[in-house]
Amino acid sequence: MRNIGVKVSYDGSGFNGFQSQPYGRTVQHEIEKAIRHLTGEEIVIIGSGRTDAGVHAMGQVFNFHTASTIPTERWAIALNTRLSKDIVILEAWDVPLEFHSRRSAKRKTYRYSIDLNKFPDVFMRPYRFHHPTKLNIAAMEEGLAYLVGRHDFTSYTSIHSTKPHHIRTIYEASFQLEEGALHMYITGNGFLYNMVRVIMGTLLWVGQGKLKPADMGRILEGKSRSLAGPTAMAHGLTLVDVEYGGWSAPEPLDDHESDFRDEDEE
Amino acid sequence: MRNIGVKVSYDGSGFNGFQSQPYGRTVQHEIEKAIRHLTGEEIVIIGSGRTDAGVHAMGQVFNFHTASTIPTERWAIALNTRLSKDIVILEAWDVPLEFHSRRSAKRKTYRYSIDLNKFPDVFMRPYRFHHPTKLNIAAMEEGLAYLVGRHDFTSYTSIHSTKPHHIRTIYEASFQLEEGALHMYITGNGFLYNMVRVIMGTLLWVGQGKLKPADMGRILEGKSRSLAGPTAMAHGLTLVDVEYGGWSAPEPLDDHESDFRDEDEE
Repeated sequence: MRNIGVKVSYDGSGFNGFQSQPYGRTVQHEIEKAIRHLTGEEIVIIGSGRTDAGVHAMGQVFNFHTASTIPTERWAIALNTRLSKDIVILEAWDVPLEFHSRRSAKRKTYRYSIDLNKFPDVFMRPYRFHHPTKLNIAAMEEGLAYLVGRHDFTSYTSIHSTKPHHIRTIYEASFQLEEGALHMYITGNGFLYNMVRVIMGTLLWVGQGKLKPADMGRILEGKSRSLAGPTAMAHGLTLVDVEYGGWSAPEPLDDHESDFRDEDEE
Repeated sequence: MRNIGVKVSYDGSGFNGFQSQPYGRTVQHEIEKAIRHLTGEEIVIIGSGRTDAGVHAMGQVFNFHTASTIPTERWAIALNTRLSKDIVILEAWDVPLEFHSRRSAKRKTYRYSIDLNKFPDVFMRPYRFHHPTKLNIAAMEEGLAYLVGRHDFTSYTSIHSTKPHHIRTIYEASFQLEEGALHMYITGNGFLYNMVRVIMGTLLWVGQGKLKPADMGRILEGKSRSLAGPTAMAHGLTLVDVEYGGWSAPEPLDDHESDFRDEDEE
């Protein structure tokens, strides 16, 4: 038996999220089907976390155990030929048997992208939230800085979170401005359900002048979802990368303890 | 009666080309339908040229005559709310009654984009031709330079061209390399049917070492489509811009004389 780790990108537009569920097309189901076609095995893959309907991934990671003897370097191409155009396997590695793509993860990075043009860029439309009116980006940057560090993110989490606690660490968070677009990059040891989207929705209120930058910290301290802004739309969110620190044996994330619902961002 | 000039972008993936025809969804038909919903008028729009099925546009131009009194600055937003997500109107202007988006055009710029990554960038997949194996880009640049100037482009045109002659002027042509992608930009006074795609298909042979750069000139002089390489796939091609030199009265393009089939690139 081997354990294979895989990095995958997908355009989330056509999926009802990453994780298999009774209704709708999911990334997990499509990948499991491709593995079954390739090896004949009925395998359940383990994702580094969920992504909700409409959320994209540049570098989602999953792993699976297999008895197949397909050489490591052949997995990516063999799976890509069996997958639809909106999923692309980027790399596959042999990992230690105990490697678990969710529990072993050390850092995750998400990007939330906003189209600032008067009319949307038609080519980026599925990947950016269109916000044509003026935003105070300096204020948004100042507000975002309040969230860096180890905090209880109850205020910035969906009320549907089932986690025993909401303490997470944000290592880095910043905005990048490019022609016609604003990107927020955020890296942490784990993210709660809708966390990046609620942060972005609240920062949009800051950018619109409805909140002050310091309100981001006040809302954090208040530990109530009702204090924060709306959940920003799913299609602006992309899981950029999952890091494992050399694929070493698992050192738990803050959110490792609950197997029941170790959800990730929408 | 007024004449309105409009700049429009579209993702060509879901269209059977720009120009209305008996079968399939077309950009022209969708726009004419939106104008009809807005003004009640049955209007035929005049595009700066055709684009074939799968070809995209960042800045296609069309014009139409209307009795509507809708203020100029309202047209873009009014049409966008009536169009599907893969068409975005960018600007509208009042133009002189004699302005004709095809006959008045002075310069057109196309881009052909190639994804050089080992596995395709899933987000750019509809807009770039995936070519993961090695290309000699310096040789392609050298080959492209043979085409700049005023030439008979019979060799680099579909045999289905119905034009009386194939003389066109290329003002500028160059490659731009970005991370994981190669773009060819080409600007001329007019383009024949499949011209950019045949040029790109032939340059790919140069990049693969099947032809030498100087063969691009030899093929040009041979004036036969059979000498050139294949027609590159449609989805890598984007109409970037159409220029009018200040929307002045028409000074004809090389290809203005035939109204029957003033085709543009696939």
